[in-house]
Amino acid sequence: MSTKERILNAALALLNEEGEAAVSAVDIANVMDISPGNLYYHYKGKEEIIPALFELFAEEMQIILQSGPNDIRAIEDQWIFAYIVLEEIWDFRFFYRNLDAILLQYPALLPKFQRLLRDKRKAIRANLQQLQELGFLHIEPTLLDALVEQILLGFTYWLNLAQLENRQTSASTAIHQTVFQIMALSVPYMGETGFDALQGMIRLLQENTETK
Amino acid sequence: MSTKERILNAALALLNEEGEAAVSAVDIANVMDISPGNLYYHYKGKEEIIPALFELFAEEMQIILQSGPNDIRAIEDQWIFAYIVLEEIWDFRFFYRNLDAILLQYPALLPKFQRLLRDKRKAIRANLQQLQELGFLHIEPTLLDALVEQILLGFTYWLNLAQLENRQTSASTAIHQTVFQIMALSVPYMGETGFDALQGMIRLLQENTETK
Repeated sequence: MSTKERILNAALALLNEEGEAAVSAVDIANVMDISPGNLYYHYKGKEEIIPALFELFAEEMQIILQSGPNDIRAIEDQWIFAYIVLEEIWDFRFFYRNLDAILLQYPALLPKFQRLLRDKRKAIRANLQQLQELGFLHIEPTLLDALVEQILLGFTYWLNLAQLENRQTSASTAIHQTVFQIMALSVPYMGETGFDALQGMIRLLQENTETK
Repeated sequence: MSTKERILNAALALLNEEGEAAVSAVDIANVMDISPGNLYYHYKGKEEIIPALFELFAEEMQIILQSGPNDIRAIEDQWIFAYIVLEEIWDFRFFYRNLDAILLQYPALLPKFQRLLRDKRKAIRANLQQLQELGFLHIEPTLLDALVEQILLGFTYWLNLAQLENRQTSASTAIHQTVFQIMALSVPYMGETGFDALQGMIRLLQENTETK
């Protein structure tokens, strides 16, 4: 691993742990046991590290979003899609936990984040339409629009609400609960099959919570 | 109106217009055409104005939330409840648009905001349970939990998502669209009656948008 990569890894871990406002470039150098000058040689402070981390996140998220509706062959595949999206967000959770504050401070990230949001909305809609074509989902067009928006809202703000309420849960419990939340939105449009899939999810969620 | 009230009114209008980060106590004095010293006599800077505005907001919101499920006698009453909550949030929208940044900067507001969130969750649940008892809503307990969370998420982050996407709409269109979003969540659990109520809402939404 190059020093640049090691810096990004250390920065990401620290930012996720402490939050963006609490971390300085010197803190990052300290946890890496290198001099601030050495870090500065690779990145001109936090102002370059944060955008570099965003690029990493956006690249990985685009790969997930581009996987496309062809991967959706059953209700459970929508669930797996939600799981992968949420895990990726969790890996870069410091962005989402203080999204407004970070976008105010790094305005160059705003159009990039907006693009990601548009592509996320497109992917959600394509997946739901694929489920419709397969006959799993039965929904009016206006309600489909509302469903897409609600899933997007869940993907974007799940960590904010949890943080606001000081909910202290492990990564896997937080992700499982949010997958459940998001899947519950489309269950009423799926008839018996949807409800069965949800029951399976609840069992998995309970097993997952019990092993903590 | 006392000078203190006039200061809060002017501050609120300016904060809603410009956003919290862009407004200083001197800006507030300027729009009021009073000296910064005069303003300072009443409030020791923005650090006292923001909490005073939050108290105003919290008081008004508590009155709305305490109105209680007895006011819910038909599906449309849930719609009116959502409308009133969203209008109140719109009146103090600068808080919600940069919620994370403001709570980072004014940590004393966090427990108060958390209390409001708890009371909002309770009110949403009580209203839905009242609709269940009246026979309008048919929903499994686990899905009811998910529905409460999703409505809470909508009430809390509707303005963030709109801001993130630079959606420029009038107050009434933004509020109508969000009421629709929130109501659409419970429609699938309401059978034909719910769908009829939604159709009525869509007509109202269209009329409202056309007159813009």
